[in-house]
Amino acid sequence: MTKNKKWILKKRPKGLVEESNFQFIEEELSELQDGEILIQTEYLSVDPTQRMWLTDMPGYLPPIQIDEVIRSGGMGRVIKSKNERFDEGDLVNGFMGWQTHLISDGKGFTKVPEVLPIPTMLNVLGLTGITAYFGLLDIGQPKEGDTVVVSGAAGATGSVVAQIAKIKGCNVIGIAGGEEKCGWLEDCGLDHVIDYKATKATKELGRIAKDGIDIYFDNVGGPLLEAVLFKINLNARIVICGAISNYASTDMPVGPRNLSSLIVNRARMEGFLVLDYLDKADEARQELSKWLMDGKIKHREDIQEGIENCPNTLNRLFTGQNIGKQILKI
Amino acid sequence: MTKNKKWILKKRPKGLVEESNFQFIEEELSELQDGEILIQTEYLSVDPTQRMWLTDMPGYLPPIQIDEVIRSGGMGRVIKSKNERFDEGDLVNGFMGWQTHLISDGKGFTKVPEVLPIPTMLNVLGLTGITAYFGLLDIGQPKEGDTVVVSGAAGATGSVVAQIAKIKGCNVIGIAGGEEKCGWLEDCGLDHVIDYKATKATKELGRIAKDGIDIYFDNVGGPLLEAVLFKINLNARIVICGAISNYASTDMPVGPRNLSSLIVNRARMEGFLVLDYLDKADEARQELSKWLMDGKIKHREDIQEGIENCPNTLNRLFTGQNIGKQILKI
Repeated sequence: MTKNKKWILKKRPKGLVEESNFQFIEEELSELQDGEILIQTEYLSVDPTQRMWLTDMPGYLPPIQIDEVIRSGGMGRVIKSKNERFDEGDLVNGFMGWQTHLISDGKGFTKVPEVLPIPTMLNVLGLTGITAYFGLLDIGQPKEGDTVVVSGAAGATGSVVAQIAKIKGCNVIGIAGGEEKCGWLEDCGLDHVIDYKATKATKELGRIAKDGIDIYFDNVGGPLLEAVLFKINLNARIVICGAISNYASTDMPVGPRNLSSLIVNRARMEGFLVLDYLDKADEARQELSKWLMDGKIKHREDIQEGIENCPNTLNRLFTGQNIGKQILKI
Repeated sequence: MTKNKKWILKKRPKGLVEESNFQFIEEELSELQDGEILIQTEYLSVDPTQRMWLTDMPGYLPPIQIDEVIRSGGMGRVIKSKNERFDEGDLVNGFMGWQTHLISDGKGFTKVPEVLPIPTMLNVLGLTGITAYFGLLDIGQPKEGDTVVVSGAAGATGSVVAQIAKIKGCNVIGIAGGEEKCGWLEDCGLDHVIDYKATKATKELGRIAKDGIDIYFDNVGGPLLEAVLFKINLNARIVICGAISNYASTDMPVGPRNLSSLIVNRARMEGFLVLDYLDKADEARQELSKWLMDGKIKHREDIQEGIENCPNTLNRLFTGQNIGKQILKI
């Protein structure tokens, strides 16, 4: 018999999560039935969207229900298989959940060739990297010479967006909090980095984006959008990818009061979800792999350890502690 | 010698305009030079955008400068011509300004065949009608069965948008203020009309748009956008055409706090200006003329009279007094 340790939802959180929002339980898994596989979690991908799934607001996936295991992407190892698609030892990618083991009929899991370290695959080649790829290229439509502003630029998605924009010949302004993050972004080759903890970012942006802004890739939500709208160029594109400043906040978010700038500048603001691009994910992975191999995309993973640290690791995203992709090694 | 009466700008207004913001002067016009025409203003088109031109904010056209005549579209009669493109008696369309007469080299003026009453031509076939046509069809992309919400629905642009949406087979919800406007919109065949003066429009909208909103055509700005964002469907299109609630307001506008809805619903918000469509204006005029002849588009003009009433007539747009197109007969 295999023992599984898992986190289930007990009470919806307000603000940052607390251990009391969950219950950490141990259970015995049943014997494998025909067609099933037993997976042992190796790494969890810890993403801002998980915080949204903990609310009861309708979203692009249903809210996690009370007593359900916390939904989470990740990679794991098949340790027993009664399914002909999978062999023991296969590395698989899919919704692992905050747990050490799970039994699955294999649907929703894909086998992954082990060409790169797992954290790198979950980062640049994972959903956050693919989000960056399609969000910037398909929604943002960058052209050489465009000025591209990226918020949350030291995060998993933001850092890849900023570097793809550089590859496409854009002038890239990244916004992040703290010296270490900003220093790393400078190493990544961004043209300008604004430290919102050290300066007033809305004002700095006005000063630095002298020639206006063609693309704003927004990962954070909040007051920066208004500052951007004051500086957009004709036919600007604003990609609404995330609003991390709101997800774990108990304050009402603020809305931009100058949407008329969209009229004067014939500009567009658009939201998107990577789920709509999954059938083209291989295209993104191939391009991203090539850029990785060529050293054109630098990447960082912040790797925490231990199934018992799931809640704390999720909070790191909202307190700004992580640099690059937040990963939890099980 | 011809005498011209005109309004020039003396002090930028705050809120509604006052006569003290302007000076009403009489001047003698010089003799016509070769290539020039003398035009007598017949009707002025009074539009919300004029209020924006009175501010010193950079816009899609330069602000009107102190001591300049107030910029305004309209139609007039050529009463003397030393330009071979124009004959005495021609009806012309262009920027007349708040004045009774003007001398021009003819650039920017087009001859208009007198097939319909001038107020109708300035309304459905004028810039506001063309704005409605391209804003809805090109930016909004309506499909049969879509639910379309139009704010400022009894205005010149809104009323044409709502009726084109009906022609295209959409379910149309119009929002306007007061019984008379709402009654007229019901006569125009809209499916639902919300009177924001009699009910709480944000709440009513939630109740009526049970199947969600596919297109929001926003002429007014302000809190309604947030209510719409709570109800949008997948791939919704929000057309930002105007923000009349802000133009003459001294309060800070409010911004929608729920832009994350654009992500969940993969939705788009886009601003546009009719000036970008002028080379295709004939296409719009032909379609709109056909619908007018077929009785598929009803129209109303609110016609005030007298050059001395320019400031008061502009204010009617912002106090909600006008129904349909605001016109000033000179």
